Amino acid sequence: MADQLTDDEVSVSDDLLVEVRALIGAEDKEGLTQLVDGLHESDVAEVISRLEPDERIEFVRLLGRDFDFTALTEVDEKVRLHILSELAPTDVADGLADLDSDDAVYILEDLPDEQSEAILAQLPFAMRHRLKRSLDFPEESAGRRMQTDFVAMPPFWTVGQVIDTLREEKDLPDHFTEIFVVDAAFRLLGTVKLDRLLRSLRPVKITEIMDEDPRTIQADEDQEEAARIFQRYDLLSAAVVDDSNRLVGILTIDDIVDIIEAEAEEDIRALAGAGDAELSDTPLYVARTRIPWLMINMMTAFLASGVIAIFDGTIQAMVALAVLMPVVTALGGNAGIQAMTVTVRALSQREITKRNVARVMARETIVALMNGTAVAVAVGIVAAIWFANIELGGVIACSIVFNIICAGFFGATLPMLLDRIGVDPAVASSVFLSTLTDVIGFFAFLGIASWWFGLG
Amino acid sequence: MADQLTDDEVSVSDDLLVEVRALIGAEDKEGLTQLVDGLHESDVAEVISRLEPDERIEFVRLLGRDFDFTALTEVDEKVRLHILSELAPTDVADGLADLDSDDAVYILEDLPDEQSEAILAQLPFAMRHRLKRSLDFPEESAGRRMQTDFVAMPPFWTVGQVIDTLREEKDLPDHFTEIFVVDAAFRLLGTVKLDRLLRSLRPVKITEIMDEDPRTIQADEDQEEAARIFQRYDLLSAAVVDDSNRLVGILTIDDIVDIIEAEAEEDIRALAGAGDAELSDTPLYVARTRIPWLMINMMTAFLASGVIAIFDGTIQAMVALAVLMPVVTALGGNAGIQAMTVTVRALSQREITKRNVARVMARETIVALMNGTAVAVAVGIVAAIWFANIELGGVIACSIVFNIICAGFFGATLPMLLDRIGVDPAVASSVFLSTLTDVIGFFAFLGIASWWFGLG
Repeated sequence: MADQLTDDEVSVSDDLLVEVRALIGAEDKEGLTQLVDGLHESDVAEVISRLEPDERIEFVRLLGRDFDFTALTEVDEKVRLHILSELAPTDVADGLADLDSDDAVYILEDLPDEQSEAILAQLPFAMRHRLKRSLDFPEESAGRRMQTDFVAMPPFWTVGQVIDTLREEKDLPDHFTEIFVVDAAFRLLGTVKLDRLLRSLRPVKITEIMDEDPRTIQADEDQEEAARIFQRYDLLSAAVVDDSNRLVGILTIDDIVDIIEAEAEEDIRALAGAGDAELSDTPLYVARTRIPWLMINMMTAFLASGVIAIFDGTIQAMVALAVLMPVVTALGGNAGIQAMTVTVRALSQREITKRNVARVMARETIVALMNGTAVAVAVGIVAAIWFANIELGGVIACSIVFNIICAGFFGATLPMLLDRIGVDPAVASSVFLSTLTDVIGFFAFLGIASWWFGLG
Repeated sequence: MADQLTDDEVSVSDDLLVEVRALIGAEDKEGLTQLVDGLHESDVAEVISRLEPDERIEFVRLLGRDFDFTALTEVDEKVRLHILSELAPTDVADGLADLDSDDAVYILEDLPDEQSEAILAQLPFAMRHRLKRSLDFPEESAGRRMQTDFVAMPPFWTVGQVIDTLREEKDLPDHFTEIFVVDAAFRLLGTVKLDRLLRSLRPVKITEIMDEDPRTIQADEDQEEAARIFQRYDLLSAAVVDDSNRLVGILTIDDIVDIIEAEAEEDIRALAGAGDAELSDTPLYVARTRIPWLMINMMTAFLASGVIAIFDGTIQAMVALAVLMPVVTALGGNAGIQAMTVTVRALSQREITKRNVARVMARETIVALMNGTAVAVAVGIVAAIWFANIELGGVIACSIVFNIICAGFFGATLPMLLDRIGVDPAVASSVFLSTLTDVIGFFAFLGIASWWFGLG
């Protein structure tokens, strides 16, 4: 893992980029086409990302029909939208016509409605129809992510007939790992994996070798739920069916990988209130995605200030309290975030169910009690020595135990509560929790001190 | 996404669990075997997880040879180790013999050395040899995760010969999606996807249809790097080769999915200092995994206290400063965590390279300047009105701008620095950063106030 910054093994070299720029500058269509021809779409995407905005447009224009639109599925959304906005709908339609349907949907779904309508209007009827059907499913559903190219065969065929058809048929998906067996109404009867097919003799009927009860995914199912089914059952691909169990598409694991990655990313960013900006975004855009949480935090921070203000007399009488305050709140905040992070992830992965809610809450509270006591004793001793005041050590220890227990309890409860009312638990975010632990911490510490020492 | 807590769609029902418990209680081996037979290994794993520790052992013992050890790859590590510690090495060896080699390695690698040696000694020679070779590769390497069952064919064969061999050969992997073409020394020449094979005529030579330049993965490559190659090139499987380009195994995407998930999980937990405890762990164990960060945080929090202590005279002269302190540090902490989270994830995904380090740092600093100014103005106005003191508003605004700029800069720089020196950037963690922003915040606020108002 060392020295990652210098690791460019799977990246585009600087030399290549210089060459691309030179070819764009010279408007050398042929040279550029040749150069790009040998690159994987992910590498083309990296080239595009590293070009300046104007160069990107020139790059795509120069390549013309030789530009593989698949590369657009691998660049940041902003970059994609910018390039597409500069191209004519007919050119985009030409580019999309060569793509897998899931990639085409991925490119179309983020476009403004008029633009995507204009592009769809230029597509051949069959493709337009298929893409529209995908786009009709809800955002982030399995129907949006599915591919509509697949191999389906009738149940009365033999292995030999299937193999012969595969050998003769030109219009097959680029790559497939199983064959779907469907009835006349396109209802799914079963699936046959290619290795099974290859290992069977020609006269065998495919119904004999098919998996009759494959796991299917409803087209309107949330994509995260689909990802969970894939992970749980180690699927490589799964049939996507509509309400009447008719086969409408196929989800493959490479789409699922992207969904899992995106979901974890969402959790991490939401926990930090870090917005959804990408590396290619401008500072102004990034600032805008983050300012809401800072503003909310400002208000919640003033709430904590308000608590301290109640005890201003106490602090004036004993400045040591002001000095030690941050220790109480920092520890509460840290313990709370530990509990919250674990709970948010457990919720994300559906590890928390009605059955174990109480156990999770109890566990976090017990953990908080144990760790709170340990830390409180340590802090109490240091504080007592520092200010040569044993009572002060006792007061801070008590308030830390209390604050950390509350932090553990709320760190576990807050996300579950939000989840219960249908809000993404990750947005509970450090901001709310740390304010809560700040408020409780200040109240406990200054309150106990004020009462014990008879101040304020 | 609403109401996830009641969603048990992909889970084991309570009734099933009651039934399992009854069968265990009655020592009804036959009944239990029948019941479990219809379950997917992931569901069996869930049953095991939800049983009490003693019941788990009974469950596995009762099933005997009918227990599918694959289920053990899906339970938490602690549960797995406990079950394995209660079984005789011969029984474990019997169970492992039926598994895919990658699953067997996964189960063996976490066991104490003597125990895994004892188990390996009971395995048939060929399997023992293969597992040992996998175990010889470094932890978390591709060689550890690879499967050693695959289909390899010589280059001079035709499609017809390959298909005939597949039909006759009994000892094939349960499932495969491609065939590897190797020379006499087992060096990889190319790969043939099954769909390509099926679509080719029998007399065609496999060298004509093979992909001659497949992406391969070095056996000692880090598993995260392997995952990145899979994602970048949308691979479903890849050949794993040793130093001499000899084919030693195959990595499939379902293993990769687990690696990606685990990596994201690691980042999230490290950022929060939340330890690696699982839902099945005892409170005592959980508490132990989290206490180190709390103790570190205690020390760093006293550092912040030390800064305040320098200015105790200032605070005594003007208690409003103590009241407002937390606003300065809360905002600095929040802005810092935003910058840090984004940077840690970008590093994880290798989006940050030598070329754009300076850009990332500059961007975060500019973002901090913009948002810092916006928030500072708002806080300044509120503080000025609250304490009817315009100068105090100015002082707090200045210190907030300064603190947030430092937070943005360090939030981006700290993880990159750690990455540079080979430390996981996620352990930069909220703890260090928030102490840094606390120290800077207190210093700036109290320092500027002390100088401006001539206090202390």
